Amino acid sequence: MTDVHPAWLPPEAFRAIGSRRTLVLGDGPLVETVRAEVAQACARYDGTVAAPGDEADLVLALTTATPLPPAAQALLDEPADAASGAATGAASGTASGAASGAASGAVGGLGDEGYVLARLGGVTVVLADAPAGLLYGLFHVVRLGEQAFGADRPARAHRPAMRRRMLDHWDNIDVHPVMGQVERGYSGGSIFWRDGAAAGDLTRVRAYARLLAATGVNAISVNNVNVHATEAHLLTDRLGDVAAIADAVRPYGIRVHLSVNFASPIALGGLATADPLDEDVRAWWAATTERVYATIPDFGGYVVKADSEGQPGPFAYGRTHADGANLLAGVLAPYGGVVHWRAFVYNHRQDWRDRSTDRARAAFDHFAPLDGQFHDNAIVQVKHGPLDFQTREPVSPVIAAMPATRLAVELQVTQEYTGQQRHVCYLAPMWREVLGFRPWGQDGPDVAALATGGQAVSRSLADGGRPADGGGLADGGGLVAVSNVGDDRYWTGHPLAQANLYAFGRLAWVPGLDPTALLDEWIGLTFAAGPDREALGRTLHEMMDGSWRTYERYTAPLGVGFMVRPGHHYGPDVDGYEYTPWGTYHFADRDGVGVDRTRATGTGYTGQYPQPWSEVYESLDTCPDELLLFFHHVPYGHVLQSGSTVIQHIYDTHFAGAEQAAQTRLRWEKAEGLVDPALWARVKERLDEQVRSAEEWRDQVNAYFFRKSGVPDAHGRRIH
Amino acid sequence: MTDVHPAWLPPEAFRAIGSRRTLVLGDGPLVETVRAEVAQACARYDGTVAAPGDEADLVLALTTATPLPPAAQALLDEPADAASGAATGAASGTASGAASGAASGAVGGLGDEGYVLARLGGVTVVLADAPAGLLYGLFHVVRLGEQAFGADRPARAHRPAMRRRMLDHWDNIDVHPVMGQVERGYSGGSIFWRDGAAAGDLTRVRAYARLLAATGVNAISVNNVNVHATEAHLLTDRLGDVAAIADAVRPYGIRVHLSVNFASPIALGGLATADPLDEDVRAWWAATTERVYATIPDFGGYVVKADSEGQPGPFAYGRTHADGANLLAGVLAPYGGVVHWRAFVYNHRQDWRDRSTDRARAAFDHFAPLDGQFHDNAIVQVKHGPLDFQTREPVSPVIAAMPATRLAVELQVTQEYTGQQRHVCYLAPMWREVLGFRPWGQDGPDVAALATGGQAVSRSLADGGRPADGGGLADGGGLVAVSNVGDDRYWTGHPLAQANLYAFGRLAWVPGLDPTALLDEWIGLTFAAGPDREALGRTLHEMMDGSWRTYERYTAPLGVGFMVRPGHHYGPDVDGYEYTPWGTYHFADRDGVGVDRTRATGTGYTGQYPQPWSEVYESLDTCPDELLLFFHHVPYGHVLQSGSTVIQHIYDTHFAGAEQAAQTRLRWEKAEGLVDPALWARVKERLDEQVRSAEEWRDQVNAYFFRKSGVPDAHGRRIH
Repeated sequence: MTDVHPAWLPPEAFRAIGSRRTLVLGDGPLVETVRAEVAQACARYDGTVAAPGDEADLVLALTTATPLPPAAQALLDEPADAASGAATGAASGTASGAASGAASGAVGGLGDEGYVLARLGGVTVVLADAPAGLLYGLFHVVRLGEQAFGADRPARAHRPAMRRRMLDHWDNIDVHPVMGQVERGYSGGSIFWRDGAAAGDLTRVRAYARLLAATGVNAISVNNVNVHATEAHLLTDRLGDVAAIADAVRPYGIRVHLSVNFASPIALGGLATADPLDEDVRAWWAATTERVYATIPDFGGYVVKADSEGQPGPFAYGRTHADGANLLAGVLAPYGGVVHWRAFVYNHRQDWRDRSTDRARAAFDHFAPLDGQFHDNAIVQVKHGPLDFQTREPVSPVIAAMPATRLAVELQVTQEYTGQQRHVCYLAPMWREVLGFRPWGQDGPDVAALATGGQAVSRSLADGGRPADGGGLADGGGLVAVSNVGDDRYWTGHPLAQANLYAFGRLAWVPGLDPTALLDEWIGLTFAAGPDREALGRTLHEMMDGSWRTYERYTAPLGVGFMVRPGHHYGPDVDGYEYTPWGTYHFADRDGVGVDRTRATGTGYTGQYPQPWSEVYESLDTCPDELLLFFHHVPYGHVLQSGSTVIQHIYDTHFAGAEQAAQTRLRWEKAEGLVDPALWARVKERLDEQVRSAEEWRDQVNAYFFRKSGVPDAHGRRIH
Repeated sequence: MTDVHPAWLPPEAFRAIGSRRTLVLGDGPLVETVRAEVAQACARYDGTVAAPGDEADLVLALTTATPLPPAAQALLDEPADAASGAATGAASGTASGAASGAASGAVGGLGDEGYVLARLGGVTVVLADAPAGLLYGLFHVVRLGEQAFGADRPARAHRPAMRRRMLDHWDNIDVHPVMGQVERGYSGGSIFWRDGAAAGDLTRVRAYARLLAATGVNAISVNNVNVHATEAHLLTDRLGDVAAIADAVRPYGIRVHLSVNFASPIALGGLATADPLDEDVRAWWAATTERVYATIPDFGGYVVKADSEGQPGPFAYGRTHADGANLLAGVLAPYGGVVHWRAFVYNHRQDWRDRSTDRARAAFDHFAPLDGQFHDNAIVQVKHGPLDFQTREPVSPVIAAMPATRLAVELQVTQEYTGQQRHVCYLAPMWREVLGFRPWGQDGPDVAALATGGQAVSRSLADGGRPADGGGLADGGGLVAVSNVGDDRYWTGHPLAQANLYAFGRLAWVPGLDPTALLDEWIGLTFAAGPDREALGRTLHEMMDGSWRTYERYTAPLGVGFMVRPGHHYGPDVDGYEYTPWGTYHFADRDGVGVDRTRATGTGYTGQYPQPWSEVYESLDTCPDELLLFFHHVPYGHVLQSGSTVIQHIYDTHFAGAEQAAQTRLRWEKAEGLVDPALWARVKERLDEQVRSAEEWRDQVNAYFFRKSGVPDAHGRRIH
């Protein structure tokens, strides 16, 4: 582990705590974790682990601990309204956190994970009802650093917006012949599995759990949603491996989930069927699940990709996805487990000649009619867009279409379609757009509220009304993302891709955080050391803040997606998916480009949105430029709201995007010497590839559309 | 083996011999093979293996055997001119064999593999100077069947045109993660190797050798030209596996060759270099080769793919390909071995934006300047076309450019780019066009003569003249092909793909054979049994005879190649290789399509041909339609010599080709019941896929060019 980068928890991040006197009060394993963190910091920075009765600069205490020191007791005794306050955003104070998920009142009622933070009379106090809250409070103090020990600050309660903040690992035990050890992984091998077996040394897994806890993540799924033959056995005879991981991550408040194969009763149980309504099938799942919980009492639950891209599912038996999900929800319920049932269901053997079928419609068409049929502990997990993690997609209409269902929104931290950790692409701005999207317009709740509020928000919708903002409720489906971590020295291949992992966890806790402030927060923690950290920080900010839009410029104009090399999805291939069974087309011809998804003349997909978006997207006059070609097929000469034409926009953005990539590299080259040389070199190597690839994107996309349209660039630049 | 299809040697093919009295005279292992074949046939069909002095209907005798029976002795005593005659073609008598490689005179001087066949006074006689000749003579009698025992026939001598008639197997020992057990294999696993080890049971290999001997093939290379880590060891510590294969195929006159990695001195020998001029490197190769011959005294030699698609080669040391080839030729020479050195060298990391580089030029540019520098036992192995086994290419100009070098022409029996043994595609007509191509025009030698005559033809060229036809000489480089065989029940996946393997061997022996007659010969042998064999034969003839041109129609219009899915190369993807580093482009835009390879305005590739082709290809007026887009970039409205336009030709051929595929299936459906049901079903399954795929090709190619050109089909057919 000495060779592994500390990410956002370098020793320096603990300097403020480690150089002071800290009292930790409470019992239990997670409190011991807090105590050990404090002790480790104090050992390094000459601080003190205070004993009860000693003076302390920082008190981290469970509300049940007695006796509390005066400052803590005072906080506990305050009237409720004095302890309330606006949500805090990022530690730097520059993040403008939205209200959802943050403090709502007094100490007490903090729940399993909440805490109150205050500074009173020169003592910084964190109080929590439960040990996990204390752990999250500790990391809040870490984020604040010296600021935590400045002027007094009023008490504020902090609770996570989402009850489940989860990372899905698409890791395989066996190296898959095509997909490798980690499907869509760009950071080396798996930290859990190595070449057919569990990783023997779990030091790395423990370190990962610690990093995740500092972001607020509290759940991981440890194997690929495409559950192959070997991985299916994790549910039964290889369960010990899962238990070992659970043991490693438990001290950081993280529960383990498992991707399971829907056909397990056949493959593992020897039954003739996996029909979810079959009694033997149910009995097999019940007995199997009982054994899982006997081994891992705090097991989180199952993740299922069913009837999707070749995975088995309930369709084979004429059953619905609700039947399938409820089968598993039923056997998990006695233990408090949940099933995450993915809504990523579509026909991946579509005929490209068939223009009436629209893959974007599929999740809604499959799932919306099932609203209200899922058990309470069945979470329908919906990708944030209707297709598949493209650089730019509209928000999935499913999220607004299932008021009586617990929905989780799924993001992709691993950069499958956004540069595969060879390109700098800070994704929080995209996620913030998704989480802030309001399906019913400005007066309705946003996506974050829907994922947060779950049934409470949704049931009001079921009553026919437009929902009010449901912020603060903690029984929604939560936020889930595909992890970007591997056994790479820098965890994420590209060191700067760590920011995405960090930002995901923080947004799952406080969805309203400002992505730019969050970026600075990550920079401040990760590059906390060194005399040049401010200059370095400015460079990183400039390199990363707009990087998603830069990536969009040189890859995905106006909402066109999937112009990537089939299979591995890296680099441009404009027609790569145009004549395939995957349902991902742009229909470019010599006259125009785009997919007509209107109700008037297209696939009718716009009708899956409520008002006002249903109308906004339908009309050429109001459809946002950045999604124009997602919703409309237009001539190359069509004039955008920006005033440019479609074809000139394609040329301009591709030239600009590649130029910005070159600028990004230039900034980094000037930063040589400001940072550890090995990290500098790794980033430089990635930037070289990014610049090369951005030029390739620019030239291929421009050449393709020039060859088709015949329209020359207005500025006479070189198109091949 | 009971489950394996007998291909062109079903028991019935031996009925004519097996029901008669046959005398075999001579000694040695190959004569024993002949004797065993005859005995097996007689056992089945109640014939007799005659003893010396017995009356016989068929005498198979070495000329050195004494005493010869009267009919054989009479043949031996005949004046030379009486025994001469025109070359025989196919056994059926309908093939019009060209002169090259066939009889040239009397008994005597037949060489290692020749034989004389005659029927005199009611006795059929085969005489050979050497045992291999007797074996080939036996199979000639098999081909003739009852015709061999009809009216008297004058003596005719038969000798192979090519001294080496060789199949290269692209088989891996380890299953390659992408390429599988057999690279570009479409017939299951390897018959030599299985999952990391040699196949234990070599029954299948022996049966394969027997089939090959019946076609005339006398050499096989047993591992992939891309020599991976495990396979490299066949040269040293795994040599025993090669020896076992050599033992299995030796009774059928077949010698074993081995693909070797040019960097073996480093990887296997622990040297720091593989520089071909380094003395330690030479010593390592010499010692290694000595051990090879100590183990396999009749070892054929090495096959090398160097500096090609990532394989190591002499370029790394600033040496030429002649340096590399001569290194190996030098160490092989003492044992009579040869090195096959592939000329498939090009830049596979080309920039698609660079229009001045032309992959078609590469082999010529690399190798033509080295003419005269290769040792006598270094054979430069040239792919028949300048690119890579496309459905339609011009003949490689290298074949006419190296008069002082022994050249082998390489064909591809495995259908990498011609339907991958899912499509019916009888390739002999293509090969016949290649072999019959006359680089210097009608008065010069054809490709077959150049591969046959080797240095004798070529040296006359070096003297400045246009060569005379060198037919009949037996020291050329020969004919080589990539095999299509695997451990599939039908050997070749698609049962009808057996015809390609058969035709290759026969053309290597008699390059002038008529492909249509050869097809009927194959049908007659393979489907020799059954009351419906004539009706079945007519159906097969109709299905197969024009199948290459049918395949061309729905895939590769006017010489455009590589419109296939990258990587696996199956199915259409018009732009699949358009923006890649592979150097395979068509440059289609909204105005036109094709590659300008003229001297006047293009890459100058036409200048690599001698006259008249240099001029014929240069001019739009004379360039053959089927190669137009290989040599020229023209507007879609360009009028072909056929009178059609380019765009209408694309539409017409694609509609016609798909329709012909459907007709082919219809013919087969009507043949149900005429043939073994399992074979019928296998072919039917393939035809279903062929029809589906042909429609996909039709629709993708037509849609692509319609979207680009905007020109509607003149006949108003559906284009998507």
